[in-house]
Amino acid sequence: MAEQVGRLIAQNGAMLVCGGMSGVMEAACKGAVNAGGLTIGILPSDSVDDSNPFVTIPIATGMGIGRNILIVRTGNVIIAIDGKYGTLSEISYAMQLNKPVIALRPWFMVPGIHQVETPEEAVAVALKNLKN
Amino acid sequence: MAEQVGRLIAQNGAMLVCGGMSGVMEAACKGAVNAGGLTIGILPSDSVDDSNPFVTIPIATGMGIGRNILIVRTGNVIIAIDGKYGTLSEISYAMQLNKPVIALRPWFMVPGIHQVETPEEAVAVALKNLKN
Amino acid sequence: MAEQVGRLIAQNGAMLVCGGMSGVMEAACKGAVNAGGLTIGILPSDSVDDSNPFVTIPIATGMGIGRNILIVRTGNVIIAIDGKYGTLSEISYAMQLNKPVIALRPWFMVPGIHQVETPEEAVAVALKNLKN
Amino acid sequence: MAEQVGRLIAQNGAMLVCGGMSGVMEAACKGAVNAGGLTIGILPSDSVDDSNPFVTIPIATGMGIGRNILIVRTGNVIIAIDGKYGTLSEISYAMQLNKPVIALRPWFMVPGIHQVETPEEAVAVALKNLKN
Repeated sequence: MAEQVGRLIAQNGAMLVCGGMSGVMEAACKGAVNAGGLTIGILPSDSVDDSNPFVTIPIATGMGIGRNILIVRTGNVIIAIDGKYGTLSEISYAMQLNKPVIALRPWFMVPGIHQVETPEEAVAVALKNLKN
Repeated sequence: MAEQVGRLIAQNGAMLVCGGMSGVMEAACKGAVNAGGLTIGILPSDSVDDSNPFVTIPIATGMGIGRNILIVRTGNVIIAIDGKYGTLSEISYAMQLNKPVIALRPWFMVPGIHQVETPEEAVAVALKNLKN
Repeated sequence: MAEQVGRLIAQNGAMLVCGGMSGVMEAACKGAVNAGGLTIGILPSDSVDDSNPFVTIPIATGMGIGRNILIVRTGNVIIAIDGKYGTLSEISYAMQLNKPVIALRPWFMVPGIHQVETPEEAVAVALKNLKN
Repeated sequence: MAEQVGRLIAQNGAMLVCGGMSGVMEAACKGAVNAGGLTIGILPSDSVDDSNPFVTIPIATGMGIGRNILIVRTGNVIIAIDGKYGTLSEISYAMQLNKPVIALRPWFMVPGIHQVETPEEAVAVALKNLKN
């Protein structure tokens, strides 16, 4: 699902910003890069060498999970896929900053987020919420 | 309720760490200081002059709400009182870092937190969860 | 001079990372973008809309000048052009992290930096110092 | 010398803010605590347990050397003792923020700093520069 979200983001000409690590983040980057897109990985570590292989633009923060706020500030719309408490911190920040949050089959409900069932729906709602 | 939590923290010889601003944070600091305690305010702004008047030790981060992670990293136990998405980001970080979270009549349930009904109960559970 | 440095960075297939604001940063970004390169602006503000118009990838930190460490951590080689104390903080961080620092006609000498006189020399020394 | 600076800060009723680690920072904290003062250690690590034993108030940032800006923002006057590039980054930030910098027998000269020869002189100049 994450890979498909990444692919759709790239195919729609948008940039993917994520945490740059493995798992869901890597799958999304893989999808975006394979569709010709740019991927930005805002890393917890202090070295750009720690990003997953599908990150085009690695940003080394050295801030650990404190870098989550940078991901939220940099993105215009947030798509949450899986994740646990780390993702929840990002959703919380996004809501506090009045940024639209789309959650793909969330493990956990937060008031005010857009809940969706498919990658296609996630990206469609995200694009609709993008400010021009 | 926040003032009573602050008072009990100070009376039990613990230090209060918070965001240093107004509202719940100020009430908690007021309770702690009036009971002879120390209060640490980790501020979003870049000036120590922006803290509420009951902060003994103001820390100026200039990081905005990005400073929430510092509050969580610095505290040993987290007591959440009221708040909305900002508090939720702190709860998320605390859960991710395996720190105990006590929520006083929360507006919002997160799996894994200790839910309590009174300031007395909140501080009692917090002290029990303090390491040592 | 900054514009020429940016142009040469892009023509050599490298990415330009800077603070994303006006002045020297804007000139360097302009040179790089006009030569077909990518420019990353790690912004002090909390909004990607605050970057100069030649930033391809804006990163919003909301950390003010505290974001300087992120620029240094993200770059592999540092080219310092003009600037004053802000630039000096970046040079200091780069030296502390053992990253090569090239200073183009610096206003101020720091032990251990490479001092150069022209944009061509700056980029040549930078490329020679890039780790593969 | 650092221990004597810490002692004088405490004896003059001021608080000591530092990086909370070993070496010069520990010596200064030791002097302050032994004179009955409070010491704040703004730590690079993500755990308050990593501070030196003379830190009264440890702040865990998890930001590595990126925490230097927080030390500068939190202090009202900066006294630089020894140190190398880390100290230079703090001096640079302080100058950029227009905070007074006193350097005790510096290894390195920066325009605009107060250069002094003894701990007594350092603290005297610092106190004179404290805004009321």
